[in-house]
Amino acid sequence: MGESSFLTGFLMISNIKTIIFIALLIGTFFIVKHFEKKKVKFSTRTIYATIIGLILGVIIQLVAGLPEDPSQVDWLQEVSKWYGLFGYGFMDLLKMLVVPMVFVSIIRVIINMKEGDNLQALTFKSLGMLLGTTCLAAIIGIVVGNVMKLGVGFEATGIEAPEMREITPLVDTLRGLLPSNPVLSMADGNIVAIIIFATFLGLATNRTKKKYMDTVKPFIDLVEAFYKIIVSVAMTVIKFMPYAVVALLANTITARGLSSMISVVQFVVALYVATAILFVVHLIIIAACGLNPITYIKNAAEPLLLAFTSRSSLGTLPVTIDTLVKKHGVEEGVASFTASLGANMGMNGCAGIYPALMAITVANMAGIDKDISFYVMLLVVITISSLGIAGLPGTATMAVSVVVSGVGLGAYFPLAGGILAIDPILDMGRTMINVNGASVTSIAVGNSLGKIDKDIYNRKNTVTTEDRSA
Amino acid sequence: MGESSFLTGFLMISNIKTIIFIALLIGTFFIVKHFEKKKVKFSTRTIYATIIGLILGVIIQLVAGLPEDPSQVDWLQEVSKWYGLFGYGFMDLLKMLVVPMVFVSIIRVIINMKEGDNLQALTFKSLGMLLGTTCLAAIIGIVVGNVMKLGVGFEATGIEAPEMREITPLVDTLRGLLPSNPVLSMADGNIVAIIIFATFLGLATNRTKKKYMDTVKPFIDLVEAFYKIIVSVAMTVIKFMPYAVVALLANTITARGLSSMISVVQFVVALYVATAILFVVHLIIIAACGLNPITYIKNAAEPLLLAFTSRSSLGTLPVTIDTLVKKHGVEEGVASFTASLGANMGMNGCAGIYPALMAITVANMAGIDKDISFYVMLLVVITISSLGIAGLPGTATMAVSVVVSGVGLGAYFPLAGGILAIDPILDMGRTMINVNGASVTSIAVGNSLGKIDKDIYNRKNTVTTEDRSA
Amino acid sequence: MGESSFLTGFLMISNIKTIIFIALLIGTFFIVKHFEKKKVKFSTRTIYATIIGLILGVIIQLVAGLPEDPSQVDWLQEVSKWYGLFGYGFMDLLKMLVVPMVFVSIIRVIINMKEGDNLQALTFKSLGMLLGTTCLAAIIGIVVGNVMKLGVGFEATGIEAPEMREITPLVDTLRGLLPSNPVLSMADGNIVAIIIFATFLGLATNRTKKKYMDTVKPFIDLVEAFYKIIVSVAMTVIKFMPYAVVALLANTITARGLSSMISVVQFVVALYVATAILFVVHLIIIAACGLNPITYIKNAAEPLLLAFTSRSSLGTLPVTIDTLVKKHGVEEGVASFTASLGANMGMNGCAGIYPALMAITVANMAGIDKDISFYVMLLVVITISSLGIAGLPGTATMAVSVVVSGVGLGAYFPLAGGILAIDPILDMGRTMINVNGASVTSIAVGNSLGKIDKDIYNRKNTVTTEDRSA
Repeated sequence: MGESSFLTGFLMISNIKTIIFIALLIGTFFIVKHFEKKKVKFSTRTIYATIIGLILGVIIQLVAGLPEDPSQVDWLQEVSKWYGLFGYGFMDLLKMLVVPMVFVSIIRVIINMKEGDNLQALTFKSLGMLLGTTCLAAIIGIVVGNVMKLGVGFEATGIEAPEMREITPLVDTLRGLLPSNPVLSMADGNIVAIIIFATFLGLATNRTKKKYMDTVKPFIDLVEAFYKIIVSVAMTVIKFMPYAVVALLANTITARGLSSMISVVQFVVALYVATAILFVVHLIIIAACGLNPITYIKNAAEPLLLAFTSRSSLGTLPVTIDTLVKKHGVEEGVASFTASLGANMGMNGCAGIYPALMAITVANMAGIDKDISFYVMLLVVITISSLGIAGLPGTATMAVSVVVSGVGLGAYFPLAGGILAIDPILDMGRTMINVNGASVTSIAVGNSLGKIDKDIYNRKNTVTTEDRSA
Repeated sequence: MGESSFLTGFLMISNIKTIIFIALLIGTFFIVKHFEKKKVKFSTRTIYATIIGLILGVIIQLVAGLPEDPSQVDWLQEVSKWYGLFGYGFMDLLKMLVVPMVFVSIIRVIINMKEGDNLQALTFKSLGMLLGTTCLAAIIGIVVGNVMKLGVGFEATGIEAPEMREITPLVDTLRGLLPSNPVLSMADGNIVAIIIFATFLGLATNRTKKKYMDTVKPFIDLVEAFYKIIVSVAMTVIKFMPYAVVALLANTITARGLSSMISVVQFVVALYVATAILFVVHLIIIAACGLNPITYIKNAAEPLLLAFTSRSSLGTLPVTIDTLVKKHGVEEGVASFTASLGANMGMNGCAGIYPALMAITVANMAGIDKDISFYVMLLVVITISSLGIAGLPGTATMAVSVVVSGVGLGAYFPLAGGILAIDPILDMGRTMINVNGASVTSIAVGNSLGKIDKDIYNRKNTVTTEDRSA
Repeated sequence: MGESSFLTGFLMISNIKTIIFIALLIGTFFIVKHFEKKKVKFSTRTIYATIIGLILGVIIQLVAGLPEDPSQVDWLQEVSKWYGLFGYGFMDLLKMLVVPMVFVSIIRVIINMKEGDNLQALTFKSLGMLLGTTCLAAIIGIVVGNVMKLGVGFEATGIEAPEMREITPLVDTLRGLLPSNPVLSMADGNIVAIIIFATFLGLATNRTKKKYMDTVKPFIDLVEAFYKIIVSVAMTVIKFMPYAVVALLANTITARGLSSMISVVQFVVALYVATAILFVVHLIIIAACGLNPITYIKNAAEPLLLAFTSRSSLGTLPVTIDTLVKKHGVEEGVASFTASLGANMGMNGCAGIYPALMAITVANMAGIDKDISFYVMLLVVITISSLGIAGLPGTATMAVSVVVSGVGLGAYFPLAGGILAIDPILDMGRTMINVNGASVTSIAVGNSLGKIDKDIYNRKNTVTTEDRSA
């Protein structure tokens, strides 16, 4: 206790290095500000910020002497905490928008649906695309895992007691998605429940307005007003993204270190290779829709970089929707609906690639024979569970628990402990490809329903922050 | 662990019988659908659904060989879980409506009150009727319990340590009913708190609109709009009731079995006899209001069957209110107010009949002399506690804990263990008579305030689902 | 168990004295009602109620024979519980208004801001004044503590294991203030988060309305309507204040007793002396603003007495805002903003005087040498932590934990145990000076921004309850 307790426990500044690196972070903010003044494009600035964050993180690790376990170095933890305040503080402000934005935008979508529109088609196509791409992700994971022989050479003989997460039955998860109390669902941030409740309200409004337009008009007008306002709040918050990106990436590198990656470098490489391959597949889907994949990459940079640095699909959601509408030209309704769903179900990275790679690794470590029935089982289990783990906390770890035990390898799960230690490094790639999967789904579904404005899509990313703030 | 863990732990389908009976349930849905197409009346369809659910449940129990403890048979538990998804999933959607519906409808009632209307009269009459019928229920329970000599012959000598629920003091319960944070009250589903907050808002709006109509009109209009919409959502959900009723009843029989009832059959019979007698008393109250009791039965079928099969007074609330308004002709305001109160306070079954029967049983088991002061005490305790346990979870068990210890029998409570095991079977009757008590209260109060449209009441149940969906 | 369990555990009436004193409280209500009928001014009635509550509490303690530990006397606890139902029940109804009132009034303030208005100036001036007065409070606490030689003569030799509250790091507290889910923030009553979210909404509305007035007008109108209504609800609830004040003060004296104060009387005296000095300093600030301090005292009586008797800054908030607007003439926006902030940050009593006195006491008890660096450190720690403990439960105890360990005395903290036992007695003075600090801040900030209507301020408190209910 004593003074040190005030400095370490309360202020979290007990070392001159902590102060220096907080100052350095604020210094980088001036650089980012400089680019803003020079009217550098928003997405270019975000890329610059990612590079600056990377450099800052590496410098901090070098100053700390590349420790194997950064959690043992007090000042690294302090720097990480303070960087987190800036980075995750920004993410908190984005998350603040998720519940009201999803709620209001879904109601709005459905109120504005015309006779010909088909909510069922939208729902089924979205779910189908999400599950389909997750299945593709799993296939890629399986192939990459086998080609790279993950886990081979690490065969274990004695196995310790398993420490898996307890599995939540599919039935309970599905019931948990229902909005049995909409206010509680909102307080809990249960997005699927909010979508369902909003859908009911929207459908009822749509039906009621035919006969009683005068009565329900105040509700419709309020929804429109609040949507306008919440989108405007989103614009304001998103403007700070480049600053946050610096802090977020530097924070992850500071807290996890570079040397901790070495022992599991093969797995990290495999995950990023699989992610890259899936990204190419996503681009092929875009091309198959008759859209230019190069344009897609340029347009999608912002949400992808934010997902990569923040590791939060849900937090990125306001940026994802904004980009889909403003840059990819997807109709607001379709964009809100599919992106919200995709932030919770059929996550390509967390529920596709990652559990597939883990299952291969664990199977190899355990020295299990993998026949065709093993692979079929694996694909079925991954695809179903990508639906069934929706909305549960710790999605990726939960997915791995369900999948690994689903293919009969539960007892060998502890072998993968070393991989879990560097989870945040993996989570960056995973989250990015989750968001990309949801975006591609949104575009493909929007395209098939004729809800994409190709003029917007093709105007080659000329939107700048100035346009955004309009 | 292993594959079985995926099937049993995650999918909950480990036996071919599970699949067969899930398929059979879906098969019954087509039968129900068939009746719908044939334009069979909604309440008739609900009765058919109850019969189908009963048959389905009995078949399942027969196939399982009438096990004494169904919780030991894995596939029975799996079937029960999956049936629950359909049945309780429906109840979740109904519950979803409770918080917004109670909140908005109470505000609306009070805004629309005219000069002559008396909120105090409504409140006091409602509470008086609820407590009065609960007291009647207790008297019936005492008489039936004594006539059937419940617990006589099961006198215990050695008594084990009591395992009662801890009693929450009345003062704390009353304070807990106050809405110290209305958003928290909504998230917690604290209905009485929501009623109080909504009453304050409604009164303030009513007062303010005299001077500042222009300012507060947007709020009044929004309340009207949202009420219209939420009622329309209720209509949509309620249409699925017959399907849910099949699943709910089959689920209860599957999970609890028939043979488990034998050991406590006397208590089950007593409860249903008392329920039947109270039902007749309720009909006499209806007749005393100058209304036709036969018409009442026809009109009330839907909420009563839903309460019986779902065992949730609160979940049934949207259907109860809808029936009171559309079939019994009670004014919307009175119906919302009394039915919402009655779903939480003065519950005839849970807080009246059940604790009375339990107290008699336990007293007989313990070999206690019951004199006149015992019975007076019992009535006083039951009536006060029916108010004081409002809003607590596990109302019936809490009521028994308060009452049994209230009359000095706390130490003998464990004797009733066998009865608690089949609680869901008892809960069906209890919940039905709760809802009936609230409905009768609503009609009697509405009648005494001149707020019943007798033309609607007497049009002999010609409302069909088609009318409903209007 | 048994009958006594029903009376003591459930009803909390096991002694004839409990009934007599409940009856006596209700008797005092008729006296208060009598004053109301005689058209005695509202603030005068509140003062009378405080005196009645004091007398009632002392009578109860005398009847109980001035026990050293009132928590050992059952009927005292029962009386306290029942008095609490009236007193804290009233506070619950006031607290009910806090979340909607803060949310709506902040949005309204910002929507109504004109071009020239400066939100940043308002924010910084408010925070500056709050921290400044907290620092002043700490200086007064240090001086009083030293003059009265608190803790001298109680030096301890053997020290037991410390039992401090765990310190929440500043960074975590700051992030906890962000509204990462606005519905959760509302359910949790996280006022600073609600202010931030409301500020974003207000700014966005203000920006959007320039271009899209038609679209956002329904939202603006609804905010105005709801504000009008919630203020009207506040008026209704506030009218019951004199009754609650009797119950609240009698409750505190009943539960804590008079004799328990003797052992720590020196500390109690010191706290109230420091509070009185700070009150004078507050009046000097008022005078420095060119306003009449005597008028201030007359105008501020109601919130100060409610704070004193209820010990809840947050619960008093609706009364504080109402008084600032209606009596001190502060513009509604400034009043809502600064008073809401001041109920959570820079609390003069809880985070200023109290931790200063405690630190001096503990230092003297521990026999520590206090040099100039000790005092500087103490002031810095108090001022920073008054910001950093915002919104945490048990603010005062948390402040002491942070401050005492912040100046290196954590190990000696247990020495102060006797003082914590009479915390409610201290809390009355602390809460009053918190509210006074927030009110003075509001007036000073309002004055510097030209947002005070001096005609209202100077009309010499002629507002009566009758005006209030208008």
